[in-house]
Amino acid sequence: MKRIAVVGGRGFVGGELLRLLVHHPEVEVAAVTSDTQAGRAVETAHPPLRGSGLRYSRRADLEPVDLVFLAGVHGSSAKIVDEVAALAPKIVDLTADFRIGDAALMERYYGWSREGEHAKAFVRGLPELHRKQIADADRVAVPGCMATSAILSLAPLASRGLLKDVQVDARTGSSGAGAGAGDANSHALRSGVMRVFAPFDHRHEAEVAEALRVDVSMTVTATPQVRGVQTLTKVAVGDVGERELLAMYRDDYGAEPFVRLVNSPRGTYRYPDPKVLLGSNFCDVGVVADGRGRALVIGSLDNLMKGAAGGAVQCMNLMLGLPETYGLTFPGLHPV
Amino acid sequence: MKRIAVVGGRGFVGGELLRLLVHHPEVEVAAVTSDTQAGRAVETAHPPLRGSGLRYSRRADLEPVDLVFLAGVHGSSAKIVDEVAALAPKIVDLTADFRIGDAALMERYYGWSREGEHAKAFVRGLPELHRKQIADADRVAVPGCMATSAILSLAPLASRGLLKDVQVDARTGSSGAGAGAGDANSHALRSGVMRVFAPFDHRHEAEVAEALRVDVSMTVTATPQVRGVQTLTKVAVGDVGERELLAMYRDDYGAEPFVRLVNSPRGTYRYPDPKVLLGSNFCDVGVVADGRGRALVIGSLDNLMKGAAGGAVQCMNLMLGLPETYGLTFPGLHPV
Amino acid sequence: MKRIAVVGGRGFVGGELLRLLVHHPEVEVAAVTSDTQAGRAVETAHPPLRGSGLRYSRRADLEPVDLVFLAGVHGSSAKIVDEVAALAPKIVDLTADFRIGDAALMERYYGWSREGEHAKAFVRGLPELHRKQIADADRVAVPGCMATSAILSLAPLASRGLLKDVQVDARTGSSGAGAGAGDANSHALRSGVMRVFAPFDHRHEAEVAEALRVDVSMTVTATPQVRGVQTLTKVAVGDVGERELLAMYRDDYGAEPFVRLVNSPRGTYRYPDPKVLLGSNFCDVGVVADGRGRALVIGSLDNLMKGAAGGAVQCMNLMLGLPETYGLTFPGLHPV
Amino acid sequence: MKRIAVVGGRGFVGGELLRLLVHHPEVEVAAVTSDTQAGRAVETAHPPLRGSGLRYSRRADLEPVDLVFLAGVHGSSAKIVDEVAALAPKIVDLTADFRIGDAALMERYYGWSREGEHAKAFVRGLPELHRKQIADADRVAVPGCMATSAILSLAPLASRGLLKDVQVDARTGSSGAGAGAGDANSHALRSGVMRVFAPFDHRHEAEVAEALRVDVSMTVTATPQVRGVQTLTKVAVGDVGERELLAMYRDDYGAEPFVRLVNSPRGTYRYPDPKVLLGSNFCDVGVVADGRGRALVIGSLDNLMKGAAGGAVQCMNLMLGLPETYGLTFPGLHPV
Repeated sequence: MKRIAVVGGRGFVGGELLRLLVHHPEVEVAAVTSDTQAGRAVETAHPPLRGSGLRYSRRADLEPVDLVFLAGVHGSSAKIVDEVAALAPKIVDLTADFRIGDAALMERYYGWSREGEHAKAFVRGLPELHRKQIADADRVAVPGCMATSAILSLAPLASRGLLKDVQVDARTGSSGAGAGAGDANSHALRSGVMRVFAPFDHRHEAEVAEALRVDVSMTVTATPQVRGVQTLTKVAVGDVGERELLAMYRDDYGAEPFVRLVNSPRGTYRYPDPKVLLGSNFCDVGVVADGRGRALVIGSLDNLMKGAAGGAVQCMNLMLGLPETYGLTFPGLHPV
Repeated sequence: MKRIAVVGGRGFVGGELLRLLVHHPEVEVAAVTSDTQAGRAVETAHPPLRGSGLRYSRRADLEPVDLVFLAGVHGSSAKIVDEVAALAPKIVDLTADFRIGDAALMERYYGWSREGEHAKAFVRGLPELHRKQIADADRVAVPGCMATSAILSLAPLASRGLLKDVQVDARTGSSGAGAGAGDANSHALRSGVMRVFAPFDHRHEAEVAEALRVDVSMTVTATPQVRGVQTLTKVAVGDVGERELLAMYRDDYGAEPFVRLVNSPRGTYRYPDPKVLLGSNFCDVGVVADGRGRALVIGSLDNLMKGAAGGAVQCMNLMLGLPETYGLTFPGLHPV
Repeated sequence: MKRIAVVGGRGFVGGELLRLLVHHPEVEVAAVTSDTQAGRAVETAHPPLRGSGLRYSRRADLEPVDLVFLAGVHGSSAKIVDEVAALAPKIVDLTADFRIGDAALMERYYGWSREGEHAKAFVRGLPELHRKQIADADRVAVPGCMATSAILSLAPLASRGLLKDVQVDARTGSSGAGAGAGDANSHALRSGVMRVFAPFDHRHEAEVAEALRVDVSMTVTATPQVRGVQTLTKVAVGDVGERELLAMYRDDYGAEPFVRLVNSPRGTYRYPDPKVLLGSNFCDVGVVADGRGRALVIGSLDNLMKGAAGGAVQCMNLMLGLPETYGLTFPGLHPV
Repeated sequence: MKRIAVVGGRGFVGGELLRLLVHHPEVEVAAVTSDTQAGRAVETAHPPLRGSGLRYSRRADLEPVDLVFLAGVHGSSAKIVDEVAALAPKIVDLTADFRIGDAALMERYYGWSREGEHAKAFVRGLPELHRKQIADADRVAVPGCMATSAILSLAPLASRGLLKDVQVDARTGSSGAGAGAGDANSHALRSGVMRVFAPFDHRHEAEVAEALRVDVSMTVTATPQVRGVQTLTKVAVGDVGERELLAMYRDDYGAEPFVRLVNSPRGTYRYPDPKVLLGSNFCDVGVVADGRGRALVIGSLDNLMKGAAGGAVQCMNLMLGLPETYGLTFPGLHPV
């Protein structure tokens, strides 16, 4: 059994990670830290952990482990990564701090950046694009939830040089805003919204641009669900037809355990819908051609799973030499 | 045109009040105060007021008006009522501060009380029970939303001496928690809940007990809707049958403009459901006998309307000698 | 008082129309027909009509009135329009039957068409574009809900020749599917969806194309709310900046009673969100430039109001020489 | 590997069963029947089964298996049980057909009954009450979802003779109405409801009464969530205090794998809330004394899991001599 610690286990991503780790067949949770919650039962914040007996400890009390997940708020990882590295040979970061390697890009979207070299030490935590590098890496940065959906939606076109005029329309549920998200995310104000909170220049746009080396425009709308992210991406593909497009996606993703091509002519769920992915680690992808030179690629995932904690555990499995799907086989609930 | 001021116009109840007042045919909004928002446009917090041109002012700058609504947080009215009284001959309070006349009861449920005499100066703002007193009053305290539903559900039985073994099961939407309601009311945590947050001893229980002079047990559950309160009350009525019960309610409420008896044998909406009352000032009431000595009385209302701002405007109309229904005729939306 | 009939008053649009007409100061509802519901109380299907006393009658029993609204299912109006025209000098159609004047376009999107001349007799029921024609018309066809949002979003650019590469991303609530919408619209299956049910070629696309004489690509997603439509439209506008764009919209819509420019730098509701428009007749529009040659235009409305019944009453007011805003001043609810 | 068949696999319960069985370590799905869907892929109706390769077959083509689940509509099991019994030594029924042993009770609540002997052959599928009988049984009938919550809420009091004046207030999500639930369960009409559809005499009331040999009054409200059932039960317990009550529940349920006592003084989830149980097989129970002679017992579960398919698999495990928790360890999602 590998010993794992979660640093910053108070938030939604931390809770999801712990749920996965507690049920994982080959790891054990050695510590969960939260300086504000130290001593308290983890199950108070995260009901799925009822009966786990886990308690929060202080980060200062962390002892050596095999791997650490950094699940604190954005900005916290950059401050503590060196200290943590002294205690753990492997680190998976779930904040935004090391997602972007290019310092200028980081500056433009975040207003600050760790010196470039440091960030470059982190491998992008997308096994579908970087499986081998992740397996060899000591440090992995899990991409943002909407970035993951958009990158996986576009990678088969990117590798074939087909990305032109890329417009991403992203929709995100409220859990993406985190556990202490302020009045605008109160139930009364957030219920039923179609809130365009980032018409342009959302931070996840930078990740897509860097990962695929493409100019991309992303618009983000807060939508009414709690969990779930969807991206609708339009791309000018010229005269490449739907059949050809589907073949590309099938070629690239046919052997992937967590990417499915969902393109049914019939039924209620013909294209990727996050509704049927809650709790699962799938990113479903569908692609449709409009017959007028443009393709629509639909990507959907659970932002706390494939878009965060699930993707992180997938990376951990690779980094520890475990089967990639361990602890990640829950297929989703329906209806829910 | 009567000149009206709203003190504490930042919250949901304040916004609802302003919406009603701006469209009211016989009043004008002379001032809206919020010390933290002074100078800002009211429409930023309350989108239905777009185009109204209203701006928040400081309470210290309040000038004499015909009537003041106190719509701040609970506890704020008791502190300022004397100052406000110097500027306005009539006051309608929407906080809990003056709802309970009995000092001992107030102490037990709230842990503090204004000296009894002061609270007694406030008439309970329920026109169906106290129409004449309200019309003559200078000070009116609007009851709590769940208390309003329960009191109107039970009044016909109370006046006939039929209240025995009263159990109130109350359900409340998230807007009842107010505009700055903390993490437990964040969208992610509050969506889809059935949260029993007050198994017993909710503060509205005290209001029902005092209004009807009856021992009552109220259990409160936070339910997933934004607006809307429902109470299901079970009462031991002995051998009084459903037909008799319906006749009592028809007698008492047949002429009421805002209480409707809803008891259909058919259709989707056979009993009172807050879903069809959003934005309306109705309290719908239904009553069913179980044939075993017990009646179920169902009450439903919009907590921001009949349960707060709507009820307050109804009182204002009476206090200013205006037709009782002015500004309150919106019938609700369906479906919504 | 003008006498009005609603033919096909069973559905959601019929209920909304009746709610507006019953509270309208200058009209009276002379008849509501539904052959399957004849004799039944209208309030059973439409709770906001409780107390109205209205009952359904058979269409065959319709007597002459001043104006008829056709609110049946799509396809029903074409069959009965001639009969109805014998009883009413003026007709407002709310089905899709006469929205499209061009027979070839109708054939392509609907698979059938009334002979072109007949459809051309109907004026498009968008007062912002065709106010004078509507006032003079005997027959008006109200556009589809998403078409209305998209057309009003784009009209200021269209009239200035700025429409290029138009991509509409439309989102629609469940009430748009109508009252008998089948299992895919059951609560369990439809809750929380992000269902891309029309990747391309939705029928409302044809209306936008015809109204603005532009090639347009529309993608439609069913989203989780009951009421409310939003369109996000991206347009290549070259080097026209945001300030210029805003000036165009202000020029065109500044005097419109039901179109508002919503573009705030601050607050929770910075851009058009249908959440704050429920029950109102507003179409809110916002426009943002990305600084890279593309503008995003956001349009939002209540699909049963400005997108159907509200727009229809606005047309009726013009056709009957009444003030355009009569019966349509409800400002929306917040929060809801 | 035991071979299992699901008869009637089209509905929500059938889908949930299949999801559990496909991931179960000791069984395989030999057949899924649906006469209307024969030949079609199961994953079209049930997205969590994507990739399973399962197809519907006709019931007439069923071959011998180790155990059959009957998951059709209510009334269907009684018609086919004898035929099915010829093919399978063990049957678990998920319809209401064999839940009630007493013919008179069945007649009163359902208007029909299988001859009493036949129904008596079915053991009530509640392991917490009848573990040994289930292990020895050939036929098991899983109780209704609300009945399960109420029975488990009350059993510790029943066995101690403490049930007096029992009032059950039950709340149910929309998935309980099944997959083809009609217009009243359409998203537009069912969203946000507090619909008291059974003021008294709901069929699950009969199950509670028979299981616990007590007179019970149950009121049922349709509430806005998709999944999840909650019962609030008030019982007159005289001077038995909360500490004593908690001890009783701890004694009875301390060793149960799927019943948890949830009674926290702190935190957001102090009492049982179905929100945190979706996908899990737990029935959480909490108990509070009001200090005035009455206790409130709160029970919550996922109606498709512990209230149907999960409970059924738990019974199957016992009937096949497998560990009781196999396939049922998912702890729920949070937030969702």
